[in-house]
Amino acid sequence: MAADRGAAIALDAHGTDAGPSVIVDGARAAAADGIGVRVFGDPDQLGGLEEVDGVEVVAAAGTITNDDEPVRAVRERPDASVVLAAADVAEGRSQGLVSAGSTGAAMTAALFALRRLSGVHRPALAVQVPVPSRDIPVVFLDVGANSEARPQHLVQFAYLGSAFATVVLGIDRPRVGLLTIGEEQGKGIPLVVEAGAALDRADNLDFAGNVEGRDLPAGSVDVVVADGFTGNVALKTMEGTASEVTGAVRSAARGNPVAALGGLLLRPALGGVRRRLDPDQTGGAILLGLRGVAIVAHGSSSADGIANAVRQAARAVDERIVERTGELLEASGATRSSLRDDGERDTKTG
Amino acid sequence: MAADRGAAIALDAHGTDAGPSVIVDGARAAAADGIGVRVFGDPDQLGGLEEVDGVEVVAAAGTITNDDEPVRAVRERPDASVVLAAADVAEGRSQGLVSAGSTGAAMTAALFALRRLSGVHRPALAVQVPVPSRDIPVVFLDVGANSEARPQHLVQFAYLGSAFATVVLGIDRPRVGLLTIGEEQGKGIPLVVEAGAALDRADNLDFAGNVEGRDLPAGSVDVVVADGFTGNVALKTMEGTASEVTGAVRSAARGNPVAALGGLLLRPALGGVRRRLDPDQTGGAILLGLRGVAIVAHGSSSADGIANAVRQAARAVDERIVERTGELLEASGATRSSLRDDGERDTKTG
Repeated sequence: MAADRGAAIALDAHGTDAGPSVIVDGARAAAADGIGVRVFGDPDQLGGLEEVDGVEVVAAAGTITNDDEPVRAVRERPDASVVLAAADVAEGRSQGLVSAGSTGAAMTAALFALRRLSGVHRPALAVQVPVPSRDIPVVFLDVGANSEARPQHLVQFAYLGSAFATVVLGIDRPRVGLLTIGEEQGKGIPLVVEAGAALDRADNLDFAGNVEGRDLPAGSVDVVVADGFTGNVALKTMEGTASEVTGAVRSAARGNPVAALGGLLLRPALGGVRRRLDPDQTGGAILLGLRGVAIVAHGSSSADGIANAVRQAARAVDERIVERTGELLEASGATRSSLRDDGERDTKTG
Repeated sequence: MAADRGAAIALDAHGTDAGPSVIVDGARAAAADGIGVRVFGDPDQLGGLEEVDGVEVVAAAGTITNDDEPVRAVRERPDASVVLAAADVAEGRSQGLVSAGSTGAAMTAALFALRRLSGVHRPALAVQVPVPSRDIPVVFLDVGANSEARPQHLVQFAYLGSAFATVVLGIDRPRVGLLTIGEEQGKGIPLVVEAGAALDRADNLDFAGNVEGRDLPAGSVDVVVADGFTGNVALKTMEGTASEVTGAVRSAARGNPVAALGGLLLRPALGGVRRRLDPDQTGGAILLGLRGVAIVAHGSSSADGIANAVRQAARAVDERIVERTGELLEASGATRSSLRDDGERDTKTG
């Protein structure tokens, strides 16, 4: 990428498992690609970053952790790193937010600062899940923006995910599945049964029906919709399983000299599988349904993971992914229902 | 095993994805181990099985499929294979039920015929999940007996799972985790938050707190508790991911001649990993909280999977796993609260 410093990305320096060092290295790598990076945090912990071309350090007083109640913390601590970073985007000094800290705090700060698109009930956190059998990832949402959802929210997530898959993956008419516990219609909890019935009647959407947990890694549909609780559990189960199984394969390749030689010869091919499934390669989860770009990266991100999340944010800005997703969403009619701004007294959506 | 025909197992012949042929071969293999197998189904589809030593074929008129509403179907079709098989256990002609058909029908038939243990709110479906990093599996429940649960149900599942882990895995004081979307207390949906608070106060239980999706494949605790909807989605996601990743490793080993040689040398070691994660090897899910043994095998079971499920049922009978789990459950005080028999007007459990 050219060092044109088109979009600037606001990067929250705090909350990663490994501490600010991955932020320092990640920001440096992203800036080397020509992305402007504004890093919000404690300057004492970001040593050397001020001198990097394309990076600006903005001092923040304090952080919000997983132990804080997100809404209260975001309201009460306007100087916390993630709150300042989100405000930076809202005020136009930067164009996208990246945080690898508390997911709840990042989402709350983004929601308060960037606001929802008109007609969107709830933003949803979407990931592009790499699956072994497909060249393009599966879009999976909501993976944790809302731990509770109502049927009309799941219906709108289906439209959001479908629009996003069209915009980022170029799928013309994405097939959307509803995550539940049996393929037959009517299986699952009332939330899912009601959402399934509404999706069956939905216009401008290719609803493929119910899918099960195994359809996600199998990539049987282009978009998988779930409530945020189920989606988060499924995503982490999938990531954990992929990591444990590839780890077991590595251990097996150390078991005896013959296996070790086999492992050595197989390593380049296996490296491809591992890289493909590595959450660090995919950047982070994007919060869909807002008027701006907000990316939530893994707390366990390496410097590579942080750099990829910043690159993903810059790409989302350059390619107008959020705006185009919103336009498609509106064109589909999924935002047509009248809606109160507090999101808690929604009327049924069509 | 000696051909002593101690316990007889009632095997539902219908509902597997592959048709009755896997039942024929599975029953034959289990009978060769000395287990008495009573097979319920259409004799015309069970050709040759009557002549097998240790196997009896009992004619059933019809089956219940995934498309039927389980409670109504079990009530209205007393001659369906799974209903007759469950009645066979209740009437003492056999000692354990195995079905690879509709999970809902098998659970309903077992619940109606075998009844709940005194003080048990709801039975729970438990699996022993093989994880790469542990020599013994993780007990995971509920994986689908109840798609909806209340906090007191999750509390009792914790006790059920803990007692089961002690009985089948010999773990003296199993560490029990509650599946949710963040390790911090108070994370997740109200169901889980309330259950977590109650588990924190629970006696005679080693509650390890909240766990996330990745803790399941990592085996960070001995027992993982979830509601049946979340548990089923997580289990199928894990099984699907393990299968896709090992499949991708196999494909990678066919990519070029060097990788192919590596794959050949590594094959014995990789086979161990695959076998270990193969759901067919673990038999099936056991329905805990009833007065008898009921095993629900995968619909996708091979003949091996069916034989292993029958062996698992026979072992559960021989080792009095259900009775001993019930005794431990009662000793823990987890069944003490008064409870109506319909399970729908439970009072809060302690």
